[in-house]
Amino acid sequence: MTAPRYDFASDNTAGAAPEAVVSWLAANVGFVSGYGTDPVVRRAADLIRERLDADAEVRFLASGTAANALALAMLAGPHEAVLAHEHAHVCTDETGAPGFFGAGVGLIPLAGPSGRIEPAVLELALALPDVSYRQSPAALSLTQATEYGQVYTADELARLIGPAKAQGLRVHLDGARLANAAAAGFELRTIGALGVDALVMGGTKAGLPLSEALVIFDRSLARRLDARLKHAGQLVSKARFLAASWIGMLESGAWVERSAHANAMAADLAARIRARTPYPLTHPVQANAVFVDMPESDLAELRARGWFVYRFLDGSVRFMCSWATTPAAVEEIAAALEAL
Amino acid sequence: MTAPRYDFASDNTAGAAPEAVVSWLAANVGFVSGYGTDPVVRRAADLIRERLDADAEVRFLASGTAANALALAMLAGPHEAVLAHEHAHVCTDETGAPGFFGAGVGLIPLAGPSGRIEPAVLELALALPDVSYRQSPAALSLTQATEYGQVYTADELARLIGPAKAQGLRVHLDGARLANAAAAGFELRTIGALGVDALVMGGTKAGLPLSEALVIFDRSLARRLDARLKHAGQLVSKARFLAASWIGMLESGAWVERSAHANAMAADLAARIRARTPYPLTHPVQANAVFVDMPESDLAELRARGWFVYRFLDGSVRFMCSWATTPAAVEEIAAALEAL
Amino acid sequence: MTAPRYDFASDNTAGAAPEAVVSWLAANVGFVSGYGTDPVVRRAADLIRERLDADAEVRFLASGTAANALALAMLAGPHEAVLAHEHAHVCTDETGAPGFFGAGVGLIPLAGPSGRIEPAVLELALALPDVSYRQSPAALSLTQATEYGQVYTADELARLIGPAKAQGLRVHLDGARLANAAAAGFELRTIGALGVDALVMGGTKAGLPLSEALVIFDRSLARRLDARLKHAGQLVSKARFLAASWIGMLESGAWVERSAHANAMAADLAARIRARTPYPLTHPVQANAVFVDMPESDLAELRARGWFVYRFLDGSVRFMCSWATTPAAVEEIAAALEAL
Amino acid sequence: MTAPRYDFASDNTAGAAPEAVVSWLAANVGFVSGYGTDPVVRRAADLIRERLDADAEVRFLASGTAANALALAMLAGPHEAVLAHEHAHVCTDETGAPGFFGAGVGLIPLAGPSGRIEPAVLELALALPDVSYRQSPAALSLTQATEYGQVYTADELARLIGPAKAQGLRVHLDGARLANAAAAGFELRTIGALGVDALVMGGTKAGLPLSEALVIFDRSLARRLDARLKHAGQLVSKARFLAASWIGMLESGAWVERSAHANAMAADLAARIRARTPYPLTHPVQANAVFVDMPESDLAELRARGWFVYRFLDGSVRFMCSWATTPAAVEEIAAALEAL
Repeated sequence: MTAPRYDFASDNTAGAAPEAVVSWLAANVGFVSGYGTDPVVRRAADLIRERLDADAEVRFLASGTAANALALAMLAGPHEAVLAHEHAHVCTDETGAPGFFGAGVGLIPLAGPSGRIEPAVLELALALPDVSYRQSPAALSLTQATEYGQVYTADELARLIGPAKAQGLRVHLDGARLANAAAAGFELRTIGALGVDALVMGGTKAGLPLSEALVIFDRSLARRLDARLKHAGQLVSKARFLAASWIGMLESGAWVERSAHANAMAADLAARIRARTPYPLTHPVQANAVFVDMPESDLAELRARGWFVYRFLDGSVRFMCSWATTPAAVEEIAAALEAL
Repeated sequence: MTAPRYDFASDNTAGAAPEAVVSWLAANVGFVSGYGTDPVVRRAADLIRERLDADAEVRFLASGTAANALALAMLAGPHEAVLAHEHAHVCTDETGAPGFFGAGVGLIPLAGPSGRIEPAVLELALALPDVSYRQSPAALSLTQATEYGQVYTADELARLIGPAKAQGLRVHLDGARLANAAAAGFELRTIGALGVDALVMGGTKAGLPLSEALVIFDRSLARRLDARLKHAGQLVSKARFLAASWIGMLESGAWVERSAHANAMAADLAARIRARTPYPLTHPVQANAVFVDMPESDLAELRARGWFVYRFLDGSVRFMCSWATTPAAVEEIAAALEAL
Repeated sequence: MTAPRYDFASDNTAGAAPEAVVSWLAANVGFVSGYGTDPVVRRAADLIRERLDADAEVRFLASGTAANALALAMLAGPHEAVLAHEHAHVCTDETGAPGFFGAGVGLIPLAGPSGRIEPAVLELALALPDVSYRQSPAALSLTQATEYGQVYTADELARLIGPAKAQGLRVHLDGARLANAAAAGFELRTIGALGVDALVMGGTKAGLPLSEALVIFDRSLARRLDARLKHAGQLVSKARFLAASWIGMLESGAWVERSAHANAMAADLAARIRARTPYPLTHPVQANAVFVDMPESDLAELRARGWFVYRFLDGSVRFMCSWATTPAAVEEIAAALEAL
Repeated sequence: MTAPRYDFASDNTAGAAPEAVVSWLAANVGFVSGYGTDPVVRRAADLIRERLDADAEVRFLASGTAANALALAMLAGPHEAVLAHEHAHVCTDETGAPGFFGAGVGLIPLAGPSGRIEPAVLELALALPDVSYRQSPAALSLTQATEYGQVYTADELARLIGPAKAQGLRVHLDGARLANAAAAGFELRTIGALGVDALVMGGTKAGLPLSEALVIFDRSLARRLDARLKHAGQLVSKARFLAASWIGMLESGAWVERSAHANAMAADLAARIRARTPYPLTHPVQANAVFVDMPESDLAELRARGWFVYRFLDGSVRFMCSWATTPAAVEEIAAALEAL
């Protein structure tokens, strides 16, 4: 048996895109001050502020889990809770990190199709009485694109953010795949205007080596932000190396364009699956993920043939495309699926 | 006024050494599994185990503060304390991170010359009665080389670790500058044998872009270590990029050799300061740091002339050399000091 | 409208039983050392050890939530989880306290009828693969009697504890209503033998003013237990006042006998409801709780007539009896129900 | 050898005063709602608001350590610090509880004579630059009366609170011995006016069985306060038993009068020590504590003769008087000291 191929296992199994590497290398020059006070960090932060059209605080972290968890800890007290989709990454894949960063902050899982929070479900959660024996919601966490590859429109986001804000909640946006959403037409400049307080803008899945941007729109939340990051183990000394790749990716447009490629590969794979296999797609393909219904025996056989992919929480099997997914690989795995 | 130069401000103001860059680039190939399960991480961990001659758990973190704090949280309960030098990085420069990672774990500062813990002071601390109104020590934290550039011999470490172990304490070694200690003759293979339970082996200051190795010698402490890292925001998805640079640095010997260069630059700078300036050295120069006694007005003038350096907690002014310090820069700053 | 009556709202709406008051008053004599080192505390702890036939650590806390949460924090690491019934008090009524005391420790809710964990559900949870992105179980939390008034037999407990222990999990028993279970025939001496590591033995609901006993069977978990309590805000100075009432309740047998009264009142109320109202009982009546199926309009009317009771998580309306419930009150509320 | 007497060991070695017992017993009537929503709690809170002349949030906790720690967690972020006297109870006697409740919040110890913070020392601390590698102060904690029995005047408090507030800090007052300060002439109504944000008003040392009042003057800090207490294990179900004793103590005036007795006993003891022993007093006697300079051999002898007292952090031996200290006991220990 051959070593497994991870081409479609996740969008973080790829390496770093050329534009990210080039600006990473370009930043490796000379002596600069540490802990995020250097010109490389400033330039990358400026580019993000420009891209979002917002005068926000921007920091760079190595881990999306940490960025999300720290953001939530800034939006909700330890005795309060965060509303999130029941399949959101913060609920299912972060090993309880929000509880750690938030000193026991709670998560309230909400249902909805394809990773989208259903407005009616949100309203029910918001209508629950505020009692002392339960962690009542202080924040709403949204994911764009969702774990099932869906892209909210600005209007759809507004329909969720509006009621939350009306009740005094803060809003977090997990943008691990924001570049895929942008490539699918979502306008980044709406994020701040919609009332998002804290955004985690994904770099890693978009082709950076490892970097997520923590963006705090409401600066009143950001008192002593660098100290807060240090205290939480999230302020690295040679911070330029977390910021540098953003410069190349944003200046060149690659952050969106390479995610557009990922999205296109997913659309292409979906088309081939629809045309040549019996596996029904289980979610619309709007970003870089393809989900299919597939029996366990077929999945085992696919893995035995060298393709590692995950069965997801909703029971579907997920095929993830990234900036590095090649048309040849798409055809190879489509052929493998066809041959099952 | 020119932009300040950071050549001597810290050993983390330098970039990444060529050997680190080359193996970082070499790792950027193909698709690999995430979260530290890939061959790059395995190879780097194997090299460290080999170097330490120990069958230890090894993980790679982006932040030394996080690595130290997480290690301490594994060695002491939240209602207990860690003994450390009063000027140790964990006490003075990590914004209370140990308390955060350790759910309120305490730090007990101990005195001693040049960042070394004085054995008699340690014994006093160990002799304090174990009472409920105080956080009693459960671990001892040592730093090699110390914040003042001193290198403990194995015997000196044994004289501190022995009494601590005899009383059931665990031992942590902050090795942010372990490479400098190794370059000064400290034998890494003694660390495990001396009874250290958790080591943070420094990469960043030794010339990596950003990476610290967390080494757990006593595997009974490491239950579900990856989950623990994830929960604490310290498990990155593209983990190969935190591990890769170690391969080049260790395979080539650069991790020690480039620190030997840093040490040599410090010795050279010290010699020039002694010969050509009125500023007394305040600590022996055993690794890559030079500390001098200097009036505030002279420090201000030095900074005004473009050299940024810190006044340290003991009142000395610190000049830090790194793998990237050039002989020319040593002469330049020596001349600047002479001209004050 | 009259002030609402709380006779059946909960078993903590009653005051303190005479035996508890008498020994509380008896302890208010003279000067004793603080923080749990006094003879009153020792005597109460001895009585509990005797009652459980176990050489365990015993401490007295003011809050059951705190006692449970602290116990769980001693049994599972912050990156691990506790398995508990989805309607267990620790999951639904403690405002996330386990996450706070356990630095983000997770809770995994399990299903089962009437608050009992279904063995098959437990086995599924235990069979889940141990992965880094999820908090895997390190402890099992059981409740005796359950939130729905059920009493596990020792055999039933063994069928849950056995598989958990076989997989290395620790076991916590929430005994807020242990006295009611004991009154229903559950033998307390089996608790330690069954492998329970930490027990919270309820005093408050059994007729004490406010006190829960934290019992640690495995003393290896209890290192510096007093310091741990102090650190967590759970070591009071005049500790005799948390311990004293236990002496009267245990020496006199009232701790069980008064709970037997509560159980008898519940049985009586259940019989009257069955005989004279249309409301079906939704759970067997084994301890001091009666649950019925009742439409919202009837519940509103009952409350309007002055009886405050809760609708519970499973949709039933709960009537709770305590040591202080009088036969007259049982008849009064039965008549009120009949008249709806 | 006889059992040791604790009459002067601490002011928490005494039991509960008659007025506290009577109202505790009076509250043990009927069924009331739980978790602090009952009329007993309301009445006690109203009395405290009246006494302080402030429309503040008031809650009752079993532990002063918990009350202080929770208050500090409400005033400073986890990455920030609290300024406190180096011998303040929160720094030296609470086993790191502030760090636990505050998710790693830091404490910055300040010097000053007799437990009073020296204004010049405070100003130095406030003048330190706000850097990311250190927990900068967000709150100031004061103690009234101090651990060495000193009573700040309102003017003296203003001289400390003023500069702190000017820099945006919050203010906490540890009033474990506020009754002794009140008995010494300190006007309680000034506390809110002075700008204190959170007060812990001591009941236990003033003669209650166990109860401390947490008073939050700035209600914007108190969002979901009951949930916060529950989450932190500090909301007990039969809350009336933590509140009840306050009613008797405040309605009767005993809260102050019995502390006036304690103060008088201390003054009397001090006079006898001055007149009949060679031991110099080490601090002015303004409240209920007497500190003397005494060699270790004499202390050992005193203890051997049956009197247990503590040597304190400043090296003095402390004699503590309480509401229960009798004139006869004062004479007995004075005679014992004379006879050493």
